[in-house]
Amino acid sequence: MSYRHDTLALIPAGIDTYRQPIVYMREDCHLCRSEGFATHTRIEVEHAGKRVIATLNVVTGGGWLPPETAALSDTAWQALAPEPGALGRFSHPEPPASASAIRTKVYGGRLDADACRAIITDTMDRRLSDLDLAAFVTACAGDRLDEAETIALTLAMRDAGERLDWGQGPVLDKHCVGGLPGNRTTPIVVAIVAAAGHLVPKTSSRAITSPAGTADTMEVMAPVALTLGEMRRVVEAEGGCVVWGGGLDLSPADDMLIRIERPLDFDSEGQMVASVLSKKASAGSSHVLIDIPVGPTAKVRSQDAARALVRRLSAVAATLGQTLAIHQSDGSAPVGRGIGPALEAHDVLAVLRRTANAPSDLRERALDVAGAMLDLVGSDGRERAARLLDSGQAEAKFMAICAAQGGFTEPGKALQTQPVTANRAGKITAIDNRRIAKIAKLAGAPGRQASGVLLKTGLGETVEIGQPLFEIHAETKGELDWALAYAAGGDSPFRVEDLS
Amino acid sequence: MSYRHDTLALIPAGIDTYRQPIVYMREDCHLCRSEGFATHTRIEVEHAGKRVIATLNVVTGGGWLPPETAALSDTAWQALAPEPGALGRFSHPEPPASASAIRTKVYGGRLDADACRAIITDTMDRRLSDLDLAAFVTACAGDRLDEAETIALTLAMRDAGERLDWGQGPVLDKHCVGGLPGNRTTPIVVAIVAAAGHLVPKTSSRAITSPAGTADTMEVMAPVALTLGEMRRVVEAEGGCVVWGGGLDLSPADDMLIRIERPLDFDSEGQMVASVLSKKASAGSSHVLIDIPVGPTAKVRSQDAARALVRRLSAVAATLGQTLAIHQSDGSAPVGRGIGPALEAHDVLAVLRRTANAPSDLRERALDVAGAMLDLVGSDGRERAARLLDSGQAEAKFMAICAAQGGFTEPGKALQTQPVTANRAGKITAIDNRRIAKIAKLAGAPGRQASGVLLKTGLGETVEIGQPLFEIHAETKGELDWALAYAAGGDSPFRVEDLS
Repeated sequence: MSYRHDTLALIPAGIDTYRQPIVYMREDCHLCRSEGFATHTRIEVEHAGKRVIATLNVVTGGGWLPPETAALSDTAWQALAPEPGALGRFSHPEPPASASAIRTKVYGGRLDADACRAIITDTMDRRLSDLDLAAFVTACAGDRLDEAETIALTLAMRDAGERLDWGQGPVLDKHCVGGLPGNRTTPIVVAIVAAAGHLVPKTSSRAITSPAGTADTMEVMAPVALTLGEMRRVVEAEGGCVVWGGGLDLSPADDMLIRIERPLDFDSEGQMVASVLSKKASAGSSHVLIDIPVGPTAKVRSQDAARALVRRLSAVAATLGQTLAIHQSDGSAPVGRGIGPALEAHDVLAVLRRTANAPSDLRERALDVAGAMLDLVGSDGRERAARLLDSGQAEAKFMAICAAQGGFTEPGKALQTQPVTANRAGKITAIDNRRIAKIAKLAGAPGRQASGVLLKTGLGETVEIGQPLFEIHAETKGELDWALAYAAGGDSPFRVEDLS
Repeated sequence: MSYRHDTLALIPAGIDTYRQPIVYMREDCHLCRSEGFATHTRIEVEHAGKRVIATLNVVTGGGWLPPETAALSDTAWQALAPEPGALGRFSHPEPPASASAIRTKVYGGRLDADACRAIITDTMDRRLSDLDLAAFVTACAGDRLDEAETIALTLAMRDAGERLDWGQGPVLDKHCVGGLPGNRTTPIVVAIVAAAGHLVPKTSSRAITSPAGTADTMEVMAPVALTLGEMRRVVEAEGGCVVWGGGLDLSPADDMLIRIERPLDFDSEGQMVASVLSKKASAGSSHVLIDIPVGPTAKVRSQDAARALVRRLSAVAATLGQTLAIHQSDGSAPVGRGIGPALEAHDVLAVLRRTANAPSDLRERALDVAGAMLDLVGSDGRERAARLLDSGQAEAKFMAICAAQGGFTEPGKALQTQPVTANRAGKITAIDNRRIAKIAKLAGAPGRQASGVLLKTGLGETVEIGQPLFEIHAETKGELDWALAYAAGGDSPFRVEDLS
């Protein structure tokens, strides 16, 4: 027994706490007792000059944690990177500098530029706990950030990560506030805008709770996990790209805040604007189109809400030197036929290739958005977008972008497919998107690229008994069965009503 | 392989997440993938008709979690109480009813009685996540709860647990806002007030980060983990008691909120008042003395803050039908000589027994508080308190209360003691309470009752080289050495300055 009072051997816990560093200590550990460490206590762990501040969870049983040992969650382990069994030194951390800034805001004060920088820096360094971040998000909810605070927060978030400078302009970009299922316009829009000769360095996200994100769909056709340098070479060669933003360190604090905002599900107009525009500023974009689907179940539910959002977006964009345009669209229905990465990629390629069965709703939306972007730097955008698509120039540009990102791959088909048929005749009056998405995920999407759901009919169409409503696509028999078992239980995702 | 898509085998994780139910699932688990479960997702787990809502942590490695298995934290396991390996059924829970009430408050609305009841009910049922509770605490911080909201919250908290009715009055109680180290007046005060013929059913807490709480100190002398029925019999027989409140289910929501409030360290005047007075109301108290130590490092730092707190306490107490008195005291220095459960119990008994070496500061504070309580229902309280103490009536009452709680035990002495001596001569000009408390905890307090620190000198006293400043008391040689190693490193907790 060593009498060193503040050390324990470190081992990996193998637990992903989603970027919150956690340290697991035994309840009979001398450090827990002597330091008064209890669950939720913040503890600084130091090893070989590296430090991380972690939240304690006390291990009461199970025997997986040996005596005189502390286990670290994935994030904490990666931060210290010790040899397993190396000694870590434990202490009470000083409260982070930004805690008093958050406290000021919570008590009704205002955030100045220094306060915003301190909060974002400590967020990045993980000196703020998830509870601290929840307090910050709460204190900024609704319209509690004024315009000056929103600008200060946007600048702090932009400056916390890498920044791209393209050395020429204009640089076009787009963002959709609150996505719609299957609304995979981005690859088409980027191809059209790049074919028009503009720079459009687009970063996209992967799915979190949906069957596919834009990055997942694009990845079926070309590599998307590029470095900043690789992304730069693609854009310099072809004008545009569609890459995964998660690995690029552009406004990275945004991701840290989103993981707290999502479960709380508070809207903060100020934080939403800071999130969107700091990413665009970091990407070096000068002209930004914001697509705002408005509808009863969309993120923006009324014209009044849309107008307030547009006002604030415009004020912050002006400070950043960005030219902004707004495109309002119908947020009431899903788009296209496929749900799942490869199935959505087939829809995208069908539009670009102008095949007879290309989903027209996806085509029209892509042309609307591309047209609005082209109007940011010219006129007659919609007509030019249609010409670039119909002439095959957009298709050619898309293939060139895929080649530059590492090579085009034709999307595959799932080995296992099974139609789900109508058990009554009539008209389809509703489709439950949540159930459809769940079936696609049970079938394996987005982890298995070819898995998902292919809609065979649509809202307002008429079906006969036995006619396929949709197909389940899966890569393994097991996953097909998981999805079928769920689809067979409970209500059908399609509501079919008598024509009489 | 079963095709049941929503079940996994349940095992205990043996991890104490301090009342937050956590479920640990493998990242390759079909449920994580198909349901879009990611860390921080809230998941409802059902087994044999019992349900719990837990937060997900994804297990990425370590091999401790077998395939097709989910592990539950202590709180979640206790809620479901399955056989290890039994199947649990997993689903997305509906958002709790109170989430919209919290949202309203976050966006600047007000909480009515129904909203407060919904929030407290869902807190008790663990339907709100720690992030939700952090948002609630944040939305109530500072003076954001008005008087009517404070009253609604107090009533909701009172009604969420058990309530005692003594069938007669007055029922006296006391609460100290922000404790001082060693300020163990409660056993003495209860003995005096009960000796005066009054009902004083006192509940106290255990230490959380300090070397001893009142319940820990009392437990050295008599059992404190009583049931409500046992507590009632003690009070009916002897007029008073000093029992542990943690097991009694009096205003239990308070404990759930405190575990979030403490790490956030926000003051909310409304929540503090609701916390204190709901506990007193649940205990059936009609006359309550609030002891408010005011000092630069105390919880209440100014006369203005004290006045605002008193105003709000008075308004809520009036609604509850409680008579309230305030006693302000000096919050700048520790009290007594012993630090640790048994060492503090020796101080308490020395005062009650009027021994020559009884710490006079503890005696004077106890008489002040007891006198103020007696003045709530009469006059000349300070003089009556002194007479009851000096005559031995308070001592006799204390022994009778201990006997009724299960029998008096004379506090023991630690086997290992070691003096720490002055290495220079001079006057003691400061004592670092935090370092003293840490030495006491390293020596084993409060887990080992006889362990702690015994001060041998005090502020303003003069010492020679080699004269003992304090003694470390420990039950094992190992713990004595932990404490000595810490005491020997760094600065001494006593600052000794030359007399010249």
